[in-house]
Amino acid sequence: MTMSTSQPSWESISTQARNNVSSLITDEFRIPPSLFPPDSLLDVTTFARESGWLTPKELEITASSATAILRNVRERTWSAEEVARAFLRAAGAAHELTNCLTDFLPTEALTTAKALDIHLSTTGKPIGPLHGLPISLKDNFNIAGRDSTVGFVSKVGHPASSNATLVDILTSLGAVLYCKTNVPTAMMIAETVNNTFGRTVNPLNRNLTSGGSSGGESALIAFGASPLGVGTDIGGSLRIPAACTGIFTLRPSLGRFTTQGCTSGMGGQEAVASVNGPMARTLDDMKMYCEAVVGARPWELDPKCVPIPWRDVERKEKLKIAVCWDDGVVRPTPPVARALRETVEKLKGAGHEVVEWDSRLHARGLELLGRMFVADGGKSIRKALEPVGEPFRPEMSMYESARELGTWEMWQLQLERWSYQKEFLDLWRGVGGLDAILGPTTPYATTEHGKLKYVGYTGVFNVVDYSAVSFPCGVTVDKDKDQPDPQYTPLSDHCRDVHDNYNADVVHGMPVSLQLIANRLEEEKVLSMTETVLKAIHG
Amino acid sequence: MTMSTSQPSWESISTQARNNVSSLITDEFRIPPSLFPPDSLLDVTTFARESGWLTPKELEITASSATAILRNVRERTWSAEEVARAFLRAAGAAHELTNCLTDFLPTEALTTAKALDIHLSTTGKPIGPLHGLPISLKDNFNIAGRDSTVGFVSKVGHPASSNATLVDILTSLGAVLYCKTNVPTAMMIAETVNNTFGRTVNPLNRNLTSGGSSGGESALIAFGASPLGVGTDIGGSLRIPAACTGIFTLRPSLGRFTTQGCTSGMGGQEAVASVNGPMARTLDDMKMYCEAVVGARPWELDPKCVPIPWRDVERKEKLKIAVCWDDGVVRPTPPVARALRETVEKLKGAGHEVVEWDSRLHARGLELLGRMFVADGGKSIRKALEPVGEPFRPEMSMYESARELGTWEMWQLQLERWSYQKEFLDLWRGVGGLDAILGPTTPYATTEHGKLKYVGYTGVFNVVDYSAVSFPCGVTVDKDKDQPDPQYTPLSDHCRDVHDNYNADVVHGMPVSLQLIANRLEEEKVLSMTETVLKAIHG
Repeated sequence: MTMSTSQPSWESISTQARNNVSSLITDEFRIPPSLFPPDSLLDVTTFARESGWLTPKELEITASSATAILRNVRERTWSAEEVARAFLRAAGAAHELTNCLTDFLPTEALTTAKALDIHLSTTGKPIGPLHGLPISLKDNFNIAGRDSTVGFVSKVGHPASSNATLVDILTSLGAVLYCKTNVPTAMMIAETVNNTFGRTVNPLNRNLTSGGSSGGESALIAFGASPLGVGTDIGGSLRIPAACTGIFTLRPSLGRFTTQGCTSGMGGQEAVASVNGPMARTLDDMKMYCEAVVGARPWELDPKCVPIPWRDVERKEKLKIAVCWDDGVVRPTPPVARALRETVEKLKGAGHEVVEWDSRLHARGLELLGRMFVADGGKSIRKALEPVGEPFRPEMSMYESARELGTWEMWQLQLERWSYQKEFLDLWRGVGGLDAILGPTTPYATTEHGKLKYVGYTGVFNVVDYSAVSFPCGVTVDKDKDQPDPQYTPLSDHCRDVHDNYNADVVHGMPVSLQLIANRLEEEKVLSMTETVLKAIHG
Repeated sequence: MTMSTSQPSWESISTQARNNVSSLITDEFRIPPSLFPPDSLLDVTTFARESGWLTPKELEITASSATAILRNVRERTWSAEEVARAFLRAAGAAHELTNCLTDFLPTEALTTAKALDIHLSTTGKPIGPLHGLPISLKDNFNIAGRDSTVGFVSKVGHPASSNATLVDILTSLGAVLYCKTNVPTAMMIAETVNNTFGRTVNPLNRNLTSGGSSGGESALIAFGASPLGVGTDIGGSLRIPAACTGIFTLRPSLGRFTTQGCTSGMGGQEAVASVNGPMARTLDDMKMYCEAVVGARPWELDPKCVPIPWRDVERKEKLKIAVCWDDGVVRPTPPVARALRETVEKLKGAGHEVVEWDSRLHARGLELLGRMFVADGGKSIRKALEPVGEPFRPEMSMYESARELGTWEMWQLQLERWSYQKEFLDLWRGVGGLDAILGPTTPYATTEHGKLKYVGYTGVFNVVDYSAVSFPCGVTVDKDKDQPDPQYTPLSDHCRDVHDNYNADVVHGMPVSLQLIANRLEEEKVLSMTETVLKAIHG
């Protein structure tokens, strides 16, 4: 402990950090006491409309897709300023009701938006394909002059000296950055909770989690306070929160979207790649984002990016899809199992070929992922906790107790991972003509706080670095249909734990998502295939 | 030391290994005593012709480019068998005169070649784009049932259980694999010498080194005993030996050519990528090889490969080239400096734009590379030496004395490397419209044995993972023109050492190579640009 006694406690720094965010939400963006709903209001997604907090025009704007917003701004039906203001007001409310923000930038966003409006009216041209689109960012995307704490108290009050490369790209394309969103400590918990900003809750049901680590984003977007956000994923951190809140996300392979200049929970860890991708309410919005960002040629700015332009998709009309009914470790809870069954029936009905995925490699993938995460003996996290005496959160116990590997052992682990990736690829190719795997994003629709523990369904695809989409499949939990199977037998202790904690009454009405997985660097194809799956589902 | 006293000494295992290779070179492939040249014959590249060892047809075959051989075999002017036999006979002689082989496969190669001939005559079609082409492989490419010792005595007699992925690809494309070539211990010395097979010498002048680590390949090819070989490069191991012997090579970026299933000196080390690429006597042969191998879609077999097909090149007719006159650490020796000056003049004469490269980042890149190499404290190498009590070679002292990093320190080093790569990319982009860097491949034409020590000119491009070609630029050392500059001032101790060891008389007549460097994953472009440079040189 290097703390001097005169230093403020971590608790007081945390309080200060929360107050700082709160103070940025000035009256224009803050729900007046007269409209403030009671804590007992669990679904706050209709609050902005039903309370009259947003004007009809603001409601129209915030209900629009990113693509529609861009068109309306380009056609000068809406000004970028009024669009920004609408989302700022929605975001202010979202934060008060779900605790989803770590930073709020009304002055900067409105200044940017006004400048964009002037540019458009002066030149007649948008400055780029994202002209006037508000985009929310996960806390770890550095913005010069602003904190990126990734939940660590010690990082409060240490603003970034420069922008993340993606921040520069988005700005150059015309995006309006207006807030940053909450994460769990080091972004290494599957829910969104940390000792600095506390816990983010699910706007669809505040008793439930919005998932993690990009759970500030998912809460904000599901609330209707962001048309598009950017999160990150090293074990499921985009897909789990997207699934918990019924929105879309793309987990790309390493190299399509730049992660340069971001704050990491475990900087320099490269054995399993952290990537970032869009979170949105529609698939089209994700495609639009990808085309715009990859179109900015990130490989000219970030040496880790690969020079692959956004490509036309070459694929068969009828897909060959392998279904992962379970991963051999944890059975999906009843609503997820039902959603998968119903989706598979619709895919078959639409003429797609469905086979069974052999999940024999999944358990080992998850085990490898865990060893890679703690290879430094938790030192990166300990070093971020210690300066202010912040304790390890209980969810982080595996980092607290880990033994650091020497570099030689790390090299052996990397060999093991390569060999695993090869086995996985061979298994995939062995199916013959396989286009995608379809499976649960998580075993849960979502869970009560503190109960989302199993990340195997997402994590295995981080180990192999495959491109994957999590999408709401149109099924919602129905407490009548989704009671636990009386014939249930556990696959493992994890499985038993998930089963015992499942309660249909608690998650009733929540959307269920599934995951569609393509091979490595097949982002265009997985988006296109998701569209096909959605057509099969919705007709 | 875990050796039991009854175990054979490393020296006796080494003798056995050398005898094994020798015994594979049966009479048909072995120079008869009556033709054997004296040790005093330094240039042995004309031996096969002048001694009458090869028949006129064998001389015609072995003098042909890979592309010409493929055409002649396809058109059934030559059988694959007679082509294989010609190169086997040449390779037998090359080994006896330069000690370049670690394995020799006459039975397997002739069997393969005969099967190819039958296939062609039966079906009228070649089995692939490499139908009937003999290809030599660096020792570390695993062939099932054969050793891959990478110079370690302890690895003698432990044959690979399966083929490297590239071996499978080459075979499927129709190549005839007929020998493996010598390397330095762990492939981590810039000359080709190890305690198992000894030292490979340069066929152009046996008092000089053929470079390393792919120096068995370069000796074999320069001798005229291979139309095309595959080597590897983690710090210059393709480019240095190519330069020492006046042949061509491409050092690709990670992910175009599979390294899967090869033996590594430091397995699992990923902070700086080891890659493999072709070594050949012509640029066209390298292009042909790249199209064939990338055309086999290696990303479907190796999870580390990127799904980028061989692309058409988009480039300007007139290039913008930055010249690296020196790297700020070591001045090139006089013939290399002259070769660079003359080449630049010809490029200017051909209308290309030439600017100066700012080499301020090079010294740091080399220092980073060194730290990544020894991050395991030399443990990988020690573990390969210990089972038989093999001593560290003096060239490997940095591995013997290194301290192992913990994983946390390794992560910090990886962060430092990423940041370095970013600075390098920014420096490159900052030039504006830059197509390539042109500079020395090494400060030397080549050197006497034991004197090739500086790898900075190549190593820096491993750290940034750029694509690079080393090519003979048409200049040979001239002891009259290339005397040391009396005004010489050293840039560093390394520089002084290189200068003091330079002797124009010793390297008189040796070819000089230069290096053309494109950005990351620009293999097609760097080959195309090399063609342009050669046109400027040769008119």
